[in-house]
Amino acid sequence: MSAVKVGVIGVGNMGRSHARKLNQGKVKGAVLTAVCDASEQQIEWVKNNITDDIDLYQDEDRFLNEADIDAIIIATPHYFHPTTAMKAFDKGIHVMLEKPAGTYAKNVKEMNEAAAESGLVFSMMYNQRTHPLYQKLRKMIHSGELGDIKRTNWIITDWYRSQSYYDSSEWRATWDGEGGGVLLNQAPHQLDLWQWTTGLMPKKVHAFVSLGKYHDIEVEDDVTAYVEYENGATGVFITSTGEAPGTNRFEITGDRGKIVVENNKLIFYRLTESERKFNATDKTGFGRPECWEIEIPVKGDYPGHLGILQNWMDAIHNGTPLLAPGTEGIKGLEISNAIYLSAWLEKTVELPVDPDLYLENLQAKIKQSTFQKKEIANVTLDVEKSH
Amino acid sequence: MSAVKVGVIGVGNMGRSHARKLNQGKVKGAVLTAVCDASEQQIEWVKNNITDDIDLYQDEDRFLNEADIDAIIIATPHYFHPTTAMKAFDKGIHVMLEKPAGTYAKNVKEMNEAAAESGLVFSMMYNQRTHPLYQKLRKMIHSGELGDIKRTNWIITDWYRSQSYYDSSEWRATWDGEGGGVLLNQAPHQLDLWQWTTGLMPKKVHAFVSLGKYHDIEVEDDVTAYVEYENGATGVFITSTGEAPGTNRFEITGDRGKIVVENNKLIFYRLTESERKFNATDKTGFGRPECWEIEIPVKGDYPGHLGILQNWMDAIHNGTPLLAPGTEGIKGLEISNAIYLSAWLEKTVELPVDPDLYLENLQAKIKQSTFQKKEIANVTLDVEKSH
Repeated sequence: MSAVKVGVIGVGNMGRSHARKLNQGKVKGAVLTAVCDASEQQIEWVKNNITDDIDLYQDEDRFLNEADIDAIIIATPHYFHPTTAMKAFDKGIHVMLEKPAGTYAKNVKEMNEAAAESGLVFSMMYNQRTHPLYQKLRKMIHSGELGDIKRTNWIITDWYRSQSYYDSSEWRATWDGEGGGVLLNQAPHQLDLWQWTTGLMPKKVHAFVSLGKYHDIEVEDDVTAYVEYENGATGVFITSTGEAPGTNRFEITGDRGKIVVENNKLIFYRLTESERKFNATDKTGFGRPECWEIEIPVKGDYPGHLGILQNWMDAIHNGTPLLAPGTEGIKGLEISNAIYLSAWLEKTVELPVDPDLYLENLQAKIKQSTFQKKEIANVTLDVEKSH
Repeated sequence: MSAVKVGVIGVGNMGRSHARKLNQGKVKGAVLTAVCDASEQQIEWVKNNITDDIDLYQDEDRFLNEADIDAIIIATPHYFHPTTAMKAFDKGIHVMLEKPAGTYAKNVKEMNEAAAESGLVFSMMYNQRTHPLYQKLRKMIHSGELGDIKRTNWIITDWYRSQSYYDSSEWRATWDGEGGGVLLNQAPHQLDLWQWTTGLMPKKVHAFVSLGKYHDIEVEDDVTAYVEYENGATGVFITSTGEAPGTNRFEITGDRGKIVVENNKLIFYRLTESERKFNATDKTGFGRPECWEIEIPVKGDYPGHLGILQNWMDAIHNGTPLLAPGTEGIKGLEISNAIYLSAWLEKTVELPVDPDLYLENLQAKIKQSTFQKKEIANVTLDVEKSH
């Protein structure tokens, strides 16, 4: 099979990075043939930086209809993700979608249905799923090493952004432009890994969300969410873009001990017996089950974005299973939709939340918005510092 | 001044430990002269283990009226704490009170008023306030090293107890006998240190509490509490007696960085400038303020219970300031009362909660209780393994 012809739509921060990788020949079996972006400035960047012989478009429909492409990478603002993906499926084009899958579950469900019907290869840019730490964590939990999960706790506050980040473009951190803040832009990686590594989706969420707490923005930059799972386990997810230095610490407690992922290490506190059995049989009151502290060796590099792009290409060429199937993008989104809805309604909500109710509430936020950005830099930031 | 004559009331787990210390002459300026306990079994233990020439009582009023005592240590079940303390103040007897100060704020307030009127030396057995780690943490925060606090997060789940602990006596872990579970018996230390080290009391609490989740008990053994402070900071406090191995990790984030207390270490992630200033001036979007990771040297030993007992004696003899004034016992209790009330009412509550409303709800719990303990061992546990 000859090289898959790939187009990139949206060459802001992330799209530029993907286009460069293709242009540099880093993705085996793929060739960059077209780029689309409505902005003159971004097109200018492509002309100056991309050496492949490609076609340039400023109109999405023309791009999808006319360009010589088998597959596209969608790196536009979040709201456009599902609509562009659905148009692509309709035209028989494979899709790699930047996170989040969308801003609300309603049209993401439609996108997933369209993807399934199309039979095309649809992947999410969940680059952190390629991290050997999280892959190992997932394997350990799924193999039963940790036993039944009792608690999850992720403090992921190291998504620091200064005000200049939010001032870099008009759509950023607005209800109308992004549909949210840290939950939709930075934390989707961890929202996905939270459920992917544990295999558990929350059943109920009660969340506390602060809008523009650390920045002059209208959306949230500080979140604490409490969740309950079907099996009775509970969890807490904390994220913020206003703390320096932040923390990235994921702790999962189970019947057979505890795993902590922090500082690029995976530490397993392994009980030599089930805690539930120990609880029932110990007669000393203050006794504790024997525990071994083990640093689990984590092998392999972290291919990141390139790993996901290559996996997508391998799936198109050879049917290799996707590490991050596009249809799984809805999981993290359903968690963030539930977090928002709980905070807006100030009550506990059950997952999945009613997609219509969510959309109504989001639209009300957009309609009621009176926020005006003071200074718009309209600059493309150096995304190499992002994740 | 001659030695202060000390009586101990309640010689279960903790009272035995205190009586031993006095008997061994470890508390300078104090002499054990009397012990009171209603239980024949406990009196028997005293006869076999305490070599001082002491008077023994089984009736509290006779003990307070007749014993040759200047001061008492109260180590009875929680409900009796304020009433016994008030009787002692009335008789001009100094008081050392085991934590918690009581089970509900209403009578603890009365106790505090009586203490203030009496002019006697009233201390709480907050032994963990003598820990050099927490003393250093408090000094650093109070001196402004961390700047304005943004977030507190304490995961204190290493209070593991097996079922046999709860089966050791009838009053344990019942609404009627203890007025609660982990929040009143194990976590009071951290509830106190949480507010003492930071100097911040929560303004609002929303909590999620599980009753008998890991043990056959009617009270809580698993708690997640979200709090908001006056200055806009938020916090999370998680505690449980059902996880092995648990975690004891206290993280405080401020404008000038972050402090993490874990594994007997105090790590300061110190920013070289204010985050708020950096936020306003950085133009790179993804930039982060310069941060130094510093392991703060923590000097001194951890005198624990003995340190608090000695401090109390020194206060009686020389007017030494108390490290844990008895009147401060209400602070941690007000937090735990608010956590319970929020969970019972399933809503956010403001601190301090209405003491009458709290008491009403607690009394309803007691009244509605149908829980019957299956096996009561009536054993005194080896408290050396406790904290």
